[in-house]
Amino acid sequence: MQILQRPRWPVVISALLFTVALVTLSASIFADEGMWTFDNPPEQQLKARYGFTPTKAWLDHVRLSSVRFNDGGSGSFVSPHGLVLTNHHVALAQLQKLSTPEHNYAAGVFYAKTETQELKCPDLELNVLVSMENVTALVLGAVKPGMSDADALKARRAEIAKIQKESLAATGLRSDVVQLYQGSEFWLYRYRKYTDVRLVFAPSQQIAFFGGDPDNFTYPRYDLDFALFRVYENGKPIESRDYLKWNPQGPVDNSLVFVSGNPGFTSRQDTMAQLQFFRDKMFPITIQMLKRRLATLEHYSAEGPEQARQAASRIFFLQNSLKAYTGMETGLKNPELMAKKEQEEKDFRERVAANPEWQKEYGNAWNEIAEAQKELAQNLNPYRFRSVGGAPLAAEALTIVQYVQQVQKPDGQRLPGFHDSQLASLRFQLFSPAPVYLPMEQAMLASVLEESGQELGPNDPFVREALQGKSAQEAAREAFAGTQMGDAAFRKSLIDGGEAAVAASKDPLIAFARRINPEIMAMIKWHEEKVESIETRAGEKIGKARFAVYGKSTYPDATFTLRLAYGTVKGYPMNGTEAPPHTTFYGLYDRAYSFGLKPPFNLPELWLKSEDKLDLKTPLDFVTTCDVVGGNSGSPVIDRNGDLVGLIFDGNIESLVGYFVYDEKDNRSVAVATPAIIEALRKVYGAGSLADELEGKL
Amino acid sequence: MQILQRPRWPVVISALLFTVALVTLSASIFADEGMWTFDNPPEQQLKARYGFTPTKAWLDHVRLSSVRFNDGGSGSFVSPHGLVLTNHHVALAQLQKLSTPEHNYAAGVFYAKTETQELKCPDLELNVLVSMENVTALVLGAVKPGMSDADALKARRAEIAKIQKESLAATGLRSDVVQLYQGSEFWLYRYRKYTDVRLVFAPSQQIAFFGGDPDNFTYPRYDLDFALFRVYENGKPIESRDYLKWNPQGPVDNSLVFVSGNPGFTSRQDTMAQLQFFRDKMFPITIQMLKRRLATLEHYSAEGPEQARQAASRIFFLQNSLKAYTGMETGLKNPELMAKKEQEEKDFRERVAANPEWQKEYGNAWNEIAEAQKELAQNLNPYRFRSVGGAPLAAEALTIVQYVQQVQKPDGQRLPGFHDSQLASLRFQLFSPAPVYLPMEQAMLASVLEESGQELGPNDPFVREALQGKSAQEAAREAFAGTQMGDAAFRKSLIDGGEAAVAASKDPLIAFARRINPEIMAMIKWHEEKVESIETRAGEKIGKARFAVYGKSTYPDATFTLRLAYGTVKGYPMNGTEAPPHTTFYGLYDRAYSFGLKPPFNLPELWLKSEDKLDLKTPLDFVTTCDVVGGNSGSPVIDRNGDLVGLIFDGNIESLVGYFVYDEKDNRSVAVATPAIIEALRKVYGAGSLADELEGKL
Repeated sequence: MQILQRPRWPVVISALLFTVALVTLSASIFADEGMWTFDNPPEQQLKARYGFTPTKAWLDHVRLSSVRFNDGGSGSFVSPHGLVLTNHHVALAQLQKLSTPEHNYAAGVFYAKTETQELKCPDLELNVLVSMENVTALVLGAVKPGMSDADALKARRAEIAKIQKESLAATGLRSDVVQLYQGSEFWLYRYRKYTDVRLVFAPSQQIAFFGGDPDNFTYPRYDLDFALFRVYENGKPIESRDYLKWNPQGPVDNSLVFVSGNPGFTSRQDTMAQLQFFRDKMFPITIQMLKRRLATLEHYSAEGPEQARQAASRIFFLQNSLKAYTGMETGLKNPELMAKKEQEEKDFRERVAANPEWQKEYGNAWNEIAEAQKELAQNLNPYRFRSVGGAPLAAEALTIVQYVQQVQKPDGQRLPGFHDSQLASLRFQLFSPAPVYLPMEQAMLASVLEESGQELGPNDPFVREALQGKSAQEAAREAFAGTQMGDAAFRKSLIDGGEAAVAASKDPLIAFARRINPEIMAMIKWHEEKVESIETRAGEKIGKARFAVYGKSTYPDATFTLRLAYGTVKGYPMNGTEAPPHTTFYGLYDRAYSFGLKPPFNLPELWLKSEDKLDLKTPLDFVTTCDVVGGNSGSPVIDRNGDLVGLIFDGNIESLVGYFVYDEKDNRSVAVATPAIIEALRKVYGAGSLADELEGKL
Repeated sequence: MQILQRPRWPVVISALLFTVALVTLSASIFADEGMWTFDNPPEQQLKARYGFTPTKAWLDHVRLSSVRFNDGGSGSFVSPHGLVLTNHHVALAQLQKLSTPEHNYAAGVFYAKTETQELKCPDLELNVLVSMENVTALVLGAVKPGMSDADALKARRAEIAKIQKESLAATGLRSDVVQLYQGSEFWLYRYRKYTDVRLVFAPSQQIAFFGGDPDNFTYPRYDLDFALFRVYENGKPIESRDYLKWNPQGPVDNSLVFVSGNPGFTSRQDTMAQLQFFRDKMFPITIQMLKRRLATLEHYSAEGPEQARQAASRIFFLQNSLKAYTGMETGLKNPELMAKKEQEEKDFRERVAANPEWQKEYGNAWNEIAEAQKELAQNLNPYRFRSVGGAPLAAEALTIVQYVQQVQKPDGQRLPGFHDSQLASLRFQLFSPAPVYLPMEQAMLASVLEESGQELGPNDPFVREALQGKSAQEAAREAFAGTQMGDAAFRKSLIDGGEAAVAASKDPLIAFARRINPEIMAMIKWHEEKVESIETRAGEKIGKARFAVYGKSTYPDATFTLRLAYGTVKGYPMNGTEAPPHTTFYGLYDRAYSFGLKPPFNLPELWLKSEDKLDLKTPLDFVTTCDVVGGNSGSPVIDRNGDLVGLIFDGNIESLVGYFVYDEKDNRSVAVATPAIIEALRKVYGAGSLADELEGKL
């Protein structure tokens, strides 16, 4: 599944992935490569390959119809009445939070026949990108000559906080400064933000995620991975002026299509030192952690059906991450890929070296990054395992402890995530009324603490504070004994009470968070000074060198901001034969019966019964050469008229290496076709009026 | 397709593949590995893994129900009235020969509703293995101490010819001495032989070979690759006492099954020197030749629909070989596989070296083989390109020239293939009444001569004789100007007339063959003396060493003789997910519509119309862990009761490395399921009475 492939690490680790990479190679105009910002669409490529020139109106319409799901996915408006289409697996976190022991919407079908039946999501924030403004001069101008790397980092952050805050005050719009081209450009993105989002329709997970973990990240595929929400404001559905018209024919084989969505991150411009660090250090340790968390949740899940219900969505997300990271690691272990990357870097550095001025300005940046990677590798274990990122409620307690401290500081001096302009969204998450399952949270904390103890040893200062001489099980039990952290009102009282309230709290999980916070803050400081500030400065140099050497007709690495990809509906060579451009409902039944209807290839009873009502040759899923990665889940697939022909839900196994390099030969994004959605709504689910709304017949 | 993957090289080249390899490693009792001779079934493995012990009656019944198609495939008796089941692609050569411009049975459906409508095949010989006798002592006893390698080879051959001739005289049965365990054992195999074989049913090639060359050697698969013949003697269908009972349920997922058929060759016991020779010399040159022949035929085929009809089956066989050889070459280029093979050889040689007696006896054999490979590599171009193997009718002319010479010699001194015991089958082929398309044959000769000229240069003695200073096109035109070689009676008159008739013949193709024959005979002699005799002797040593070191509870490399394989109906990990144990008719329609019904994924009109009559969840194809290679095409797949559940028609892409090593993880044989055949006969083809005969309802 193409959900954002970023495990919930502490902010600093994600920052590593998000801030380090360098400026891209020019994308070949002969490949469907690239995740382009809307201010710089690939006009040259589109004209040369497809004879297509997007107008400003076309681009604006597509952008304003596109929706970011802030918990890691994408979507689009598909009716004038605020209907938003995304993937079932993007909806899954909300479906889980809306579920109760009596109504398991994460597994079963949900259909609100009327608006009054639509269910409000507890903590879903949607964003629509309404404007983009280049603020590079402001941000880079804040860095004065002679500043140390660490001071430069602080100065930039302060400037970014200021720009965001002023923009929010002036416009009321969510305002994020986005770092593009790895530190060479900064843009102010303003978003219209929606927090009253209601669930309208979700098929059963069995059909949305048919084939389960085995089929995840593969193709040919037979998944009906969609769900529908409706956006409200002031208690009423919004009027969504910009929405994508439904193309009932769906995708045409070999035709031009576009994807508008939010790829999470890519590392295509990283230096060899960084790729080697990923391959040899970061990915092995990440995969190990994911496996451990998965084992913990599977153990919890096995305790009973209610535990299984509670853990289901988290298990899905962990399996998904595990498969994605394993694929990425495999990609980096491919000697051909690494040789290609090495050759690219060699060529780049030789061109820089050939110009004395460039060499003086930029030539040492690669070595600086290599040094920073070395420093990071040497301290990776404390950096990685002084953390409770794998235990969500404990991590939330830590966030509360940090929140009340950070907001005491001037805005410009706070950690990223705690700037004034960001607090509303953060509070929306912290005060979520979604149910919290304390025994599951406790089990996850125990697992995390056990891992930290094993990896760091009992004398590590973080481990000493976290365990206080007890076993991990015991320490977790004490941290959860009587905690009120499951209660949103309690969390709000702490935030509202500020530092004093948090300091005075007797809540054992808050007390635990207070104890470990100093060690975690120390690691963040170490990382800023010894790694991030150096990589940021060196990255900027390489970015500028890239522009100098290769010019600027390219796209930046992904940053979970809105991008436009383009390509063709097209099969590819696979395992000795050809994968088809699309699949049909015939294939769904084939795969189900081929495995004797055994999970995860079983079909819901409703689908077994409805088979003879379906036109089995209806296109179900399809593949495109559009360049997408995790975070693009739910992105609309659009034809040249700007109409909707499907929605992205995955990439094939060959696409996982796409985090580092795009290869048009077999990198494919996988999407659900519009006709399959209509066929299912009308003939399986009896949801004709919803189908009518989608098809514009209402 | 699992047809024998041996292009029509001159005898000596096939001999290279067939005689060189060495004795096997013991097969692990924990893998479904092995192509076992019926005298030595894998009882230990079957008991340990499956709790199954085949009785003598079971083994005899299976063996006597199994049929060898002498042009490169396998089959089985499936009714008491001589009905034989095999693959459409095994039948294809005969279907092509039975075809006329008016009736293209190679492409369309053929169904003989009554016996009188059954069509007699022009040159199809079927063999049933009726007895096996160990004659190792006789053959090896013919080699006297102190003989040179070349004399030893001659002595063996003479003894083999004698045994075969005496057996034929005594029993009237086809009698072949088979070399097993690479020269350590020789067995006399006696066959009941059938030459009146009539076509009963063939579906259209479109459905038998659905997915065409892209899907060939892959899975999941949706091919109905079967055809039915009936065996006659004295103008009447034979009573086949041993035939396989039809299991209408077909294969059960995860159940034990067997394959009884004729794998063509494997090279699992070759030395590293031999594998490296294959990888670096033999396969590249073979692939190059196949591509050239294919291009020639495709060019011919493009001249018009009648030319396309004539060339169709040859194009199929060439594409099939090309894909197989490419897969084998890819396997040998895999460094992991080669490292494994190297480690095995190192271990083996160390064990031999640890015993002074063994070391003295066997220790030098690997070096001897390496020397012979070097000699062969150095002369590979003349050896390979002094040949007209790629031009079938010219090769037949050459065979006639050689035939009349060879039969003058005492039986024991002739080339393999020309022994008295082999002449009847050879004459059956030479006198085939099948149509000959002279323009196509001429085009192929021109292509072969052009290639020889390019590779060997104009001063090569073979090239000088073949071209006589002309262009390849011109030389081929002259060789075909007025030739009567297309006429079976003419060919018979030459054989009957003997050396004098051939010497006196003015036929230009015969004259051409007479001119090139001395150079070809010289290469055969060179190969016997410098390569084959050395490899034979050294191979025997390594074979004996293998028995000494590892004991003898294993199977010999494949030799296109009857073998028993065993395994499980079972999916496998594929391209990031799981391949299912079987497929269904749903999948056939899915794949067809997924490609928009474009060739080679188009469906016959009849199948589009019949869809609603079919039970789409009927098992169509399935995979097993049974260890098969080319030559096994058409082999019956049998359950533990000895009943038929399907027939092999292919291996997956991962199985192509199986020529060198078997890996149960993803090596799979691909088969058609019995229920699909019945479903198609009854509901698509209106061939209920044939289905009744298969199901034993007549």
